[in-house]
Amino acid sequence: MYTLYYSPGSASMLVHLLLLEIGAPHELRRVDLDAGAQRDPAYLRLNPGGVVPTLLVDGAPCWETAALALLLAERHPEAGLAPPPNSAARAHYLQWMLYLANSLQPAFRWWFYPEAEGAEADIVLAAARRRIEAAWDRLAAQLAAGGPYLLGERCSVVDLYATMLMRWSRKMPRPATEWPQLAALAGRVKARPSWQRLYAIEGLTEWA
Amino acid sequence: MYTLYYSPGSASMLVHLLLLEIGAPHELRRVDLDAGAQRDPAYLRLNPGGVVPTLLVDGAPCWETAALALLLAERHPEAGLAPPPNSAARAHYLQWMLYLANSLQPAFRWWFYPEAEGAEADIVLAAARRRIEAAWDRLAAQLAAGGPYLLGERCSVVDLYATMLMRWSRKMPRPATEWPQLAALAGRVKARPSWQRLYAIEGLTEWA
Repeated sequence: MYTLYYSPGSASMLVHLLLLEIGAPHELRRVDLDAGAQRDPAYLRLNPGGVVPTLLVDGAPCWETAALALLLAERHPEAGLAPPPNSAARAHYLQWMLYLANSLQPAFRWWFYPEAEGAEADIVLAAARRRIEAAWDRLAAQLAAGGPYLLGERCSVVDLYATMLMRWSRKMPRPATEWPQLAALAGRVKARPSWQRLYAIEGLTEWA
Repeated sequence: MYTLYYSPGSASMLVHLLLLEIGAPHELRRVDLDAGAQRDPAYLRLNPGGVVPTLLVDGAPCWETAALALLLAERHPEAGLAPPPNSAARAHYLQWMLYLANSLQPAFRWWFYPEAEGAEADIVLAAARRRIEAAWDRLAAQLAAGGPYLLGERCSVVDLYATMLMRWSRKMPRPATEWPQLAALAGRVKARPSWQRLYAIEGLTEWA
């Protein structure tokens, strides 16, 4: 049994999507970021960083979106969302998960929270944009070389993660979907029943 | 059999350290970053990002430091460097690995390569420094609450990774070792035979 602390359209989306893909029983607890609920003492006891998602796993609070995705894929191998340990594709699975976690997602953190003002913020934003667009180049090249999914023939956690991040670029000067290979991947992921159920449950409308 | 493309003291250090901890047979190939060997067409075929490390696993090139660390720990459970899948500590292992990969290591990339000049670089560097020091606060708090290692009683990949990153801060205005809990952790890791062998093999002298 899992309990997910989430906010619609935030990084918790990947964890929510995986719970739906896996069909794992779970409870949802919405954290109202606009009201500052992520800084409530009770929430900070679960997640000292004051961010979503938090996933209670057997009652214990766990964080870090990509770590939770690796964990859920590992605990539910029957869902077939990741190459199994000791398979030839395993290294590439971990590699692309970490590339998204390490290169792309942090650049979005700078994009959304430059932690600077005025001209200084513009400089940080420009640097973040360069890194985000370089990542789209890299992912598009991977899809062109070995698609239609990032690990090849089969949809995996990596594609769900990449599509969530693509969604975050929808208001950027060059959204990810301007790269044709990425637009094709997003189309495939958005057609999955899990994506559509998530939109309904979280009440999302943009980028539908 | 593994082949590691490395550069002394770079991110490849974690992978090298793990190969030594595990006792896995491996070959080393030094990539001369000062000479630009990371941009040689032959190297770019192995690693399109032009960075170290690259690890050949059964002949296939794999990248991303933290992914390679997860992979090696998973392929060599007998080394006891990570809590096993389905253990209670597994989620926290993945969480801290991803925290280092996602929050701390990318901030060092901005610190070492601000990709800007003059006053613009200063702004990026200041932002990177704030994020790095916030991560030391976070890790020190974790050690204070549940040390002496980041997962508790036992040294794991997380501690080796954190110590490599601490080393990178040695010339910063506030090196990680100014946090007493982090200095204590670094001392424990630096006393390990693997760390000392790595220093000898890579010819490292600073932060000995």
